[in-house]
Formats: sequence, structure tokens, C-alpha cells
Amino acid sequence: MSTDTLLDALHQRLGQRGLLRDPEDMTRYTVDWAGERLGQPLAVARPASTDEVAETLRLCRQHGVAVSPQGGHSGLVAGALPAADGGELVISLERMDRVRDIDPINFSMTVDAGCILDNVKQAAAEHDCDFPLSLGAQGSCQIGGNIATNAGGLNVLRYGMMRELVLGLEVVLADGRIWHGLKALHKDNRGYPLQQLLLGSEGTLGIVTGAVLKLSPRATQSRTALLGLPSVEAVIALYGLARRDCSDLLSAFELIPRRCLELAMEATPTLNDPLDDAYPWYVLMEVAASGPLDLGAMLEHLLEQGMERELVLDGALAASDTQGQQLWQFRESMLEGQRRYGEHLRTDVSVPISRIPDVVERASTAIMAASPDCEIIAYGHVGDGNLHVNVLPPRGMADADKHDHLHELEALLFEVVDEVGGSISAEHGIGRTKQAAYLARLSPLERELADGIKTLFDPEHGLNPGRILPQS
Amino acid sequence: MSTDTLLDALHQRLGQRGLLRDPEDMTRYTVDWAGERLGQPLAVARPASTDEVAETLRLCRQHGVAVSPQGGHSGLVAGALPAADGGELVISLERMDRVRDIDPINFSMTVDAGCILDNVKQAAAEHDCDFPLSLGAQGSCQIGGNIATNAGGLNVLRYGMMRELVLGLEVVLADGRIWHGLKALHKDNRGYPLQQLLLGSEGTLGIVTGAVLKLSPRATQSRTALLGLPSVEAVIALYGLARRDCSDLLSAFELIPRRCLELAMEATPTLNDPLDDAYPWYVLMEVAASGPLDLGAMLEHLLEQGMERELVLDGALAASDTQGQQLWQFRESMLEGQRRYGEHLRTDVSVPISRIPDVVERASTAIMAASPDCEIIAYGHVGDGNLHVNVLPPRGMADADKHDHLHELEALLFEVVDEVGGSISAEHGIGRTKQAAYLARLSPLERELADGIKTLFDPEHGLNPGRILPQS
Repeated sequence: MSTDTLLDALHQRLGQRGLLRDPEDMTRYTVDWAGERLGQPLAVARPASTDEVAETLRLCRQHGVAVSPQGGHSGLVAGALPAADGGELVISLERMDRVRDIDPINFSMTVDAGCILDNVKQAAAEHDCDFPLSLGAQGSCQIGGNIATNAGGLNVLRYGMMRELVLGLEVVLADGRIWHGLKALHKDNRGYPLQQLLLGSEGTLGIVTGAVLKLSPRATQSRTALLGLPSVEAVIALYGLARRDCSDLLSAFELIPRRCLELAMEATPTLNDPLDDAYPWYVLMEVAASGPLDLGAMLEHLLEQGMERELVLDGALAASDTQGQQLWQFRESMLEGQRRYGEHLRTDVSVPISRIPDVVERASTAIMAASPDCEIIAYGHVGDGNLHVNVLPPRGMADADKHDHLHELEALLFEVVDEVGGSISAEHGIGRTKQAAYLARLSPLERELADGIKTLFDPEHGLNPGRILPQS
Repeated sequence: MSTDTLLDALHQRLGQRGLLRDPEDMTRYTVDWAGERLGQPLAVARPASTDEVAETLRLCRQHGVAVSPQGGHSGLVAGALPAADGGELVISLERMDRVRDIDPINFSMTVDAGCILDNVKQAAAEHDCDFPLSLGAQGSCQIGGNIATNAGGLNVLRYGMMRELVLGLEVVLADGRIWHGLKALHKDNRGYPLQQLLLGSEGTLGIVTGAVLKLSPRATQSRTALLGLPSVEAVIALYGLARRDCSDLLSAFELIPRRCLELAMEATPTLNDPLDDAYPWYVLMEVAASGPLDLGAMLEHLLEQGMERELVLDGALAASDTQGQQLWQFRESMLEGQRRYGEHLRTDVSVPISRIPDVVERASTAIMAASPDCEIIAYGHVGDGNLHVNVLPPRGMADADKHDHLHELEALLFEVVDEVGGSISAEHGIGRTKQAAYLARLSPLERELADGIKTLFDPEHGLNPGRILPQS
């Protein structure tokens, strides 16, 4: 059989550690962050070098076997899980985890795609630099996955998405050819930007094996504040003030509803209500700097202004790093708090910042009208216009009914998002789970160009087929 | 004749003001910034709307006539000038100069592609925002050209290239179809990024007719300093200090050799030597903020540190905006100073920041060895690794010999740039004048993909043919 020949050839090329065929060994490659088992790999290839990735792709192509590249399993749209039919070879880059080079004078570092984000951040810190991408999953997600999904996270407001943090790429294409684009240049205007196409392509155009990342000076001080506000309108007005008053030193500005604080306290009982009273909305914000500036005075000036204008009702300004981390603990625990409710709707939309209040209100109204007993939890990264309008289903609802019900509520949210020119996927990507909603909004022209790009890079559609675009 | 039919149809569709056929009227569309006349248009179309651009492209395609899209004539690689054979229709967007919308809460504005950069900056300022792109040509260059060339300039260090300043695009494709990508979203991870392909494509993939631009809070204070330093090594070391000491508030950090100050004083006799002594190298730097921070103290702290470490030998810190503008006058006048010497080599390379001292030294050595009587003027944007290693030819050289001689010296520079993994075009693009050097460095794989992208967007190669890639 052709797949046996392939697996034998891969075994010979990649060695014992390089190919997993035992179903038990493969279990963890079939599970994503949400814990939903979705696929079954033909086998799991674990190449240890760019050349081994290239050889793996050449062999797969020869044998007509599709591949599913995989990073740290923290994706949220099932983009990295193998197909259910057992026909796809998983390629995990986890053995390629070397920091190749750090050049702090150039503010850059070169890494293997399999490096875990936390390790990259640690290596940068050792050279007095920051790699500023910050995600909940940073202890497990890999740089290659961050690149393939154009990852966002908490600091996009200041540092941009992954797209803005990558200077160069090394990529293996579908036919096993290697694109050597590992340049450590902050500026380069030669021809069409292949790198930009690969970023966010979710493993459908090539497999990233290495990257040159852009670093920042290491922040030597930061201040965190949690503020209580009367309305989403007040949050947006405060954001405008904060952008101006904090110059470009604002690194996070999170919108959090009261219910999220409660969820966080449910999940982490050691957390106490941070302010004396309860407020309908909160902002968790952080400023950071690497030089001798008085961030405390800067933040106090902002809060005074916010209070004068009745935007801010109360606030806690962390007096130490430890206190700051405690405030951030609310942001992390509220995710766990939601998860404890079992299946719920997780969304990730973006809208113009100016439309956030309107979108939250209209979406809430529409969803509550359709499902009066559900619970809406809308939080997000204000500076990116990125909202997570999540929904916990009615308490008594049978598990079997939840999926379809939540899907209907999602459609109501998307309608509101469409009306303000928003996106149904701000940072999570398309993968499989958002494909239908994505395709429904694609114009024929956009579809034609997307198909053309896919075919140009992967004429036989062997790379992560069925993700972003449907399997042809 | 077919072109007559086309011109008649265009005249009918675009009206009197929309089509220029008189050679005298067309003169200014054949000249670029350097004043070298390079082309001859068939005619000049001046559409007044996106639909008129679309109709123009449809008609041209029908008649098999290629087009040369044109912005503000400030390009440096002859990318926007029509072919010499009189066969290309120039499409100028100058009549599409409307600011369509400003949303200061979303930090965005929507503009026609023909808007002049200075007007865009002015409109943003009226809403207490900055559009931070800053170029010498900002009084004449158009946003569409800035997008087509992924413009850089003085503030890239802090705000990025044009690629990072664009949220959405409206583009007419070769066949006249309009891509409606005018989204005002700070985050959007849906599928392949068409917008990124258009940015920097130099009019070869589509004609940008509108854009949503990303704004920043308006800087309310800035401080400028001109510093004397002993060596390029000291400049690079000071840059590392400045990035850290000035947090993210550093908006410009220019490397300038002594000779450039002299050229500036030659061109603008009202300029006086800014420091008591002459130094081999200078840094012109600027910090800016929108909030209540003490920038003066911040900059003084940096200078103290720089002097302690003997990186900075002397410096002038502007005490007022007027004094700051006077210091920037050196940066502007030094360009005029070079131009007064007639034909000279202008280059625009990028290298890793850490390699700047090495590149300046090796390139200078190689060039001086080949042409002992020439004069090398190396300046640039340190934070971008972007060097302009320019060469004034030997004084006595006959005009007829200059071009080939300078071309040989350029090749010597490019060799050094290649050795450190640099780029032969940091910000100016490829156009026509850098095509040979670009193609010589393109791998077969890169060429294949570039050809594929061109053909996907413009199957008949009617859009700015012969720019970036050779005419097929």
C-alpha cells in the first residue's frame, strides 16, 4: 500500500524519534486547546531540521498524502488538527526548538519555528530585550503557530500582531523546496512580500521552519490599574484620553464586564473583589517603559482626568509588580471561569473602536431576545476593536441542544458585526470552525484571488487542505 | 486605429478634464523627482472617481493598451513614468483628492488615493491626531503612491512603513473589477492578506483608489537634538542606549556625516555650524509625546550617559520648536546640497543595524580604492538599518563617463550589502532602475512565485509592465 511505503520511507529518513505510528503516542496530536478531539493522524512526523521537513513534504507529495502542520495545540479554530479520516500526516515541529541567534544591537533574534513562545521571551530577556507577543497560551504555543495564525494577544495595541513582529522567514513549500527568507532587516522594499502571504496562512501555503523576530528594549518598569466605569461609552472615552495621556506607553487596555470578575473569583477563590463597590464595567490597563519616566504620575494624571469627567468611578493602582500581577490574575481566571460552565459560545470579532458600545448593545439585545435565559459575557482588547462576545447557554438546557442554539446566537452577533463593517475573526483565524461564516462573506473576486494564491503555492492542495478554503 | 478608438471612448467617459492628449499638457507627467525625462504617454487619463478608474482599466484592457498609474512624481526608481515608446496610458489619480471620513475615536481616516500626504496630515491634525508618515516629498507625494511603494521616511523607527499604517484598501484590478477592502479594523485575521500584496506592488497588481489609514494621537511636545560623535560605532552604541532610555518615544535617529552638514551649509547659507567644533559623525534625533512627560529631562539623561561613555562629544538640544526645526533644516538642505553637484550615485540599502559600522567602512574602502577622487556621503535612518551610501563623482570627470562609473561603484556597495544579508532597496522600491540588481539576487523559487502573483492579478500584464519584473 502506498501509505505504508510512505511511512517506511519517513521512518528511514526521520528515525525512531522522528515518526510516531502507535495510536497511544499520537493521542496528544489529536486534541486542541478546547479539548475537543477532532481528528486522527495517519502518523506523526517530528522532523528535527529544515531539511527533514523538506524531505517529509517531498515524500508526502510523491505519495499523494496531505499534511497537517502542527504547533503547540493552542489554536481555537481546529486549523491544526488532522482530518477525521486518518488520511493526513501530522507534522509537528516540536523538536525544532533552538534559538539560532540573538542580535540585541539589531533588536532581532532568529529561532526555529518549534520554539515555545515563553522560551523565546526568556531568551530575549537574557539579552535585555522583550519579544512582546503575549498570549494566554504562551507556555505551550510555538512561534511557527504564532506565525501561521498571525497571533494577536494582549499587547497588539502597542506592538502589533505577529505580522509586525517578524522580519524574516524560512519556509518549506508544498513540493519540498525551501524559501530562504531569513533576513534580519527592519526595512526591505524588494518586490512582492512573500513573507506577508505566509503570515496568517494557517499552514496552507507552506510550513514555516524558522523566523527572524523583531525585539523591543526590555521594559524596566510597568504600572497596572483596574478601574470601575459606568458604561462601555465611558470605557471608549477613557481609551481616547489614555492614548493621549500615556503617549505610546500604553501596552494593554482591556474591557471587562462585572460578570467576568465574578467568574474569575468563582474560578480562583483567593481573588477578592478589587474595588469597594461593584461597577458594571472595568478597564484593566497597563503602561510600561524602559527608561527613566514617572509612569505613576502619568497614570495618576490620567485617572484624575477620567474622574473629573466622570468616566472613572473608582480604581485600584497597583503599588508593586506583585499587586499588578494580582490584577492580571482576574483576566486569566475569567477564562477558566467560563470554561467551568462547559460548552459555551466563544467569539472573536473586531469592529471599529468607535462602534464598540453600539455593537455590544445591539448584539446583547438581539441575543437576549432570542435566548432570554442565556448569559452574555462581552470583553475584549479595546485598542484593537477586538471583542469576545461570549455566551453561556441557559442553565437548564440539555447538552444535546446547546451546539445548535449557540450557533444561532453567533449568527445574530455576526449580523451586527457585518452592519458595522467588522470581521468575524479578529485574531483566531478561520481554520475549519469559521470557514462557513468566512466563505459566506467572501466576494467572488476575493474567492477567486484566494483560490489563486492557494494554487500558486500548493498546486496539489496537499498542505492543510480544507482549512481557510474548502477542500477541492 | 485602435488607440484612437480607445482615446475617443476615454474622452467620452472621462470628459474634457479627464483626458489630456496635448503634448504640452502632458509634459509634467513624464518627469520624475530627479528631473530625468524618461517616458512619453499615449495620453493622460485623470479619472475623478473609483468607477472612472474601473472604466478606464476596462477600456484599456479591451484595446490591449497598458497603463502606467501615477501619483505625485516623487518616486526614485522610475516606476511611475510611462514607457518611452508612447504606448502606455498614464492614469493620474490627482483629481481623487477627497478625505472621505475621519474617525478620531477609531484612530482612522478614509481617503482617496490622490490625496497629497501633507493634506492628509493636516486633516488628521484638525482632529487632534497624527498621520505619522514623514517624507521629504510630503508636499507633493500622494497616498496612493505611498501605498504602492510602501513608503518609509523619517519616522519608520517608531511608526513603521506604510504597510503598518494602512488598515484597509480599495483597489481597481486590471480587468476593471473593484476590490472593496476599505475596512477600518485594527485586527482582522480572515484568510490571505490581499492588502499586504498590494502594498509595495508599485502599481503592477492593481490601482489603489482609496485607503483607510491608521492614526496616532497628535504629539503635543517634541525635543530635537543634534549630537557630535567620534565614530559610526559610537552612533550605534548610542542608538541602543536611546532606544532604552527613551522608551518608545524615540521618533527619529538619523546618522549624518560631517560632509553632509557642509553640503547643507553650502545649499542654505543661513545655516551655521551647529556645534563649536567639527565632528566626524552626527546624530539628529527626536523624541515626541502626546502626554504630560518630561521629555527634556529624559533626553538630558540620555546625553549624560552618552557623554560619560564617551559616545557623545558635544550636542545641541533645541530649546524651542523653532530651534528644533532649524536642526531639521540640516537634514533637508543636505539633499539639496548633493543635488547641486549634478549627477551622483544615490543608493538606498538596508543592513542589520549591528552591521552598519562594518558596512560603511567596507563599502567606503572598496569605493575609494576604485575611485580615489570621488566623495562618499553615507547617511541614513539608524533604527531601520537603512543607509544611503551616496557618491559624488570625481570633480573633473566628464559628464558622459559619470553614469557608468557610478554604476560600477554601486556594484561594489551591493557586494558588501550582499555579504551581510542586506537589501539593495530598503525603501525606494524596484521600479525600473533597480530591476537588474533585484533580478540578479532573486532565487528561481522567488522568481517563480513573483511571476505567479503578477499573473494571478494581471494575467495580460497590462498594469505598469516592466516595473519590478521584466516585461513578458
